[in-house]
Amino acid sequence: MTWIDDPAFGPDRPFGPQTLPYGVLETDSGPAVCVRVGDHALPLRGLAPELGAELAGVVSGGSLDPLLAAGNTQWTALRARIAEVVTSDRRPDGAELLPVDEHRMLLGFTVADYVDFYSSRHHAENVGRMFRPDSEPLLPNWTHLPVGYHGRAGTVVVSGTDVVRPDGQSRPPGDEMPSFGPSKRLDIEAEVGFVCGGAPTSRVGTAEIADHVFGVALVNDWSARDIQPWEYQPLGPHLAKSFATSIAGWITPLAAFVDARVEPPKPDHALQDYLVEKEPWGLDLHLEVRCNGTPVSRPEFRYMSWSPAQQLAHMTVNGATVRPGDLFASGTVSGPDQDQYGSLLELTWAGKEPLVLDGGEQRTFLEDGDTVTVVGHAPGPDGSVVGLGAVTGTIVAAEPR
Amino acid sequence: MTWIDDPAFGPDRPFGPQTLPYGVLETDSGPAVCVRVGDHALPLRGLAPELGAELAGVVSGGSLDPLLAAGNTQWTALRARIAEVVTSDRRPDGAELLPVDEHRMLLGFTVADYVDFYSSRHHAENVGRMFRPDSEPLLPNWTHLPVGYHGRAGTVVVSGTDVVRPDGQSRPPGDEMPSFGPSKRLDIEAEVGFVCGGAPTSRVGTAEIADHVFGVALVNDWSARDIQPWEYQPLGPHLAKSFATSIAGWITPLAAFVDARVEPPKPDHALQDYLVEKEPWGLDLHLEVRCNGTPVSRPEFRYMSWSPAQQLAHMTVNGATVRPGDLFASGTVSGPDQDQYGSLLELTWAGKEPLVLDGGEQRTFLEDGDTVTVVGHAPGPDGSVVGLGAVTGTIVAAEPR
Repeated sequence: MTWIDDPAFGPDRPFGPQTLPYGVLETDSGPAVCVRVGDHALPLRGLAPELGAELAGVVSGGSLDPLLAAGNTQWTALRARIAEVVTSDRRPDGAELLPVDEHRMLLGFTVADYVDFYSSRHHAENVGRMFRPDSEPLLPNWTHLPVGYHGRAGTVVVSGTDVVRPDGQSRPPGDEMPSFGPSKRLDIEAEVGFVCGGAPTSRVGTAEIADHVFGVALVNDWSARDIQPWEYQPLGPHLAKSFATSIAGWITPLAAFVDARVEPPKPDHALQDYLVEKEPWGLDLHLEVRCNGTPVSRPEFRYMSWSPAQQLAHMTVNGATVRPGDLFASGTVSGPDQDQYGSLLELTWAGKEPLVLDGGEQRTFLEDGDTVTVVGHAPGPDGSVVGLGAVTGTIVAAEPR
Repeated sequence: MTWIDDPAFGPDRPFGPQTLPYGVLETDSGPAVCVRVGDHALPLRGLAPELGAELAGVVSGGSLDPLLAAGNTQWTALRARIAEVVTSDRRPDGAELLPVDEHRMLLGFTVADYVDFYSSRHHAENVGRMFRPDSEPLLPNWTHLPVGYHGRAGTVVVSGTDVVRPDGQSRPPGDEMPSFGPSKRLDIEAEVGFVCGGAPTSRVGTAEIADHVFGVALVNDWSARDIQPWEYQPLGPHLAKSFATSIAGWITPLAAFVDARVEPPKPDHALQDYLVEKEPWGLDLHLEVRCNGTPVSRPEFRYMSWSPAQQLAHMTVNGATVRPGDLFASGTVSGPDQDQYGSLLELTWAGKEPLVLDGGEQRTFLEDGDTVTVVGHAPGPDGSVVGLGAVTGTIVAAEPR
């Protein structure tokens, strides 16, 4: 028995002592860096005597930025110390426990650069089949490198933030001229994000991911499927994505996923040296996508062809640095089966096969008022479960013009 | 006669009192926000009595970030006050003048998001002719919207920073498999950058640019032409660009360009309302590209089809916010004539027609040790000249592996 009196804080529960994600909560005395224990948040500013001055210094404020910059040695020490504190039977003098349901979460860190990958073969093939039906679904580069692009860091928002339907240009099939207005094909992309930290470094080896990835958080990369095909040639997606990207408020440390490591699917051919992994960082994460409460998909991350370690190696192999606050996301997580697709585009096959939600309502793309939530978990040590914080968002009507 | 004893500080010189660009210099007492007067930099921290507490407060540190956040009212007041001080005959007590040649410039602001456009029709058509010889050089969307994409903010470097030749995958024509190594086709893109500030805002109208663009700075968007064609489908350029983007240290206020405003080339057809400009923000900027001292091109910005006001309106019309520190660049500035192209790709027609430099050396793409400098100026009030700070960089050999 620990001093934390919360039945949700057990090794068989997603936010037990094997998980210990970090996040920032709005509290009566301002934003506070917290660790989640069951259904409660534990502000770390109250644990200075237990953590010691050095560790307390990086988590006593209202942002994860100092912790991201502190690097892996401190991450490891802090996690170990917190695990001791929360599994002890003595309540620290300054400890308070805040019910997570009663406090708003904030975006816990300053997003530096945001890169979005495209590493599900099933997703890339599905999109290829829909949009280029007469050619090979995969482009030739896809099996040789993790294709990705930069997204807008300034519009990354924390889970729970409303998403305003974007306006934009689109050109419906058969039309000569584009039209302008609110997107009619607003979609989700269920993804897994990796939050970076440590000393700015380029040419990160695949074995060095633990020094540069602080933690893992679910991401929903909202996408306007009517804006995208009109704008994206030849420089890639822009306004179809840049209006909002949601990220879970709780960031689960990479260290919590040691028991979730799996080998990614075998590549089609030999990879360039910098992409080879001796001990692969594929991850056995189980995701669930819910639309207005109805589960509509259960994507499996283990099918992703490129691991986060390979993505990070690729992103920095040209000399670009990775720095604290950089965020990279996996790309839409889609598995081989139809109930494992991570986007409505695939789940409804471009809107041709509507989903039926509980209660009988049908959906192709998102309507105003719809709420999409992505949840996830992974295997933890000794048969435990490691939780990922949910990422959720509700669509609100486009701004009047 | 003003108290500034510098023959380069005159209305007929690029850095006279009509220009007054801001930058951050490394000084004996740390980084200092300065204004350039002729060939000298005037640290603003020494002018607190002249500027007053409120204005002095935003420029007394070592970063332009507080000034960018302060907004247009303060920008206007500060510029007017500085113009009075530097054209007076009385030397302020705390004023010091630092020779610009003897001090290192720093990247003066925290780059938030970086968006790169593609707004020269001549550049887009040249690239189209080279890479898609059998189809129309312009894609259908190009005349309807300013095509652009997000670049890497974390690798924007100040003028004078060496550029390490990037490594990457490429697939030479005819090869089945990609190879890996230092780029063999390293190129420049001479561009004009716009540094944003003011309150974070979405849906910025074309008439509102002065509230959101603080200033103008030359940019060189270094590009690896062998990495790009292999990686860029379908999500756009990534590692071919993300290794480095150079920006001039001196940022000339947008307010200095009132006499440089011109109408951009007429669009091919009616534009969507949000892209229409009543008083256009085309700019009559004259650029010069020098390779190892030899002028190789004189791009004219007035040929750009999309103005910075249209680019900003487009970038935010979907609901995305623009915030202080955001940087957007015009895209390669290429005019109709062969000696007006802003990239070596175009100047050498994909390497087929080498340039001859002074002294007889030939160049297709950049070699280690090459220095590329872009300079520029614009018409100012009463026949004066408004200068843009130079952006320069030298290529150094790829990292040994």
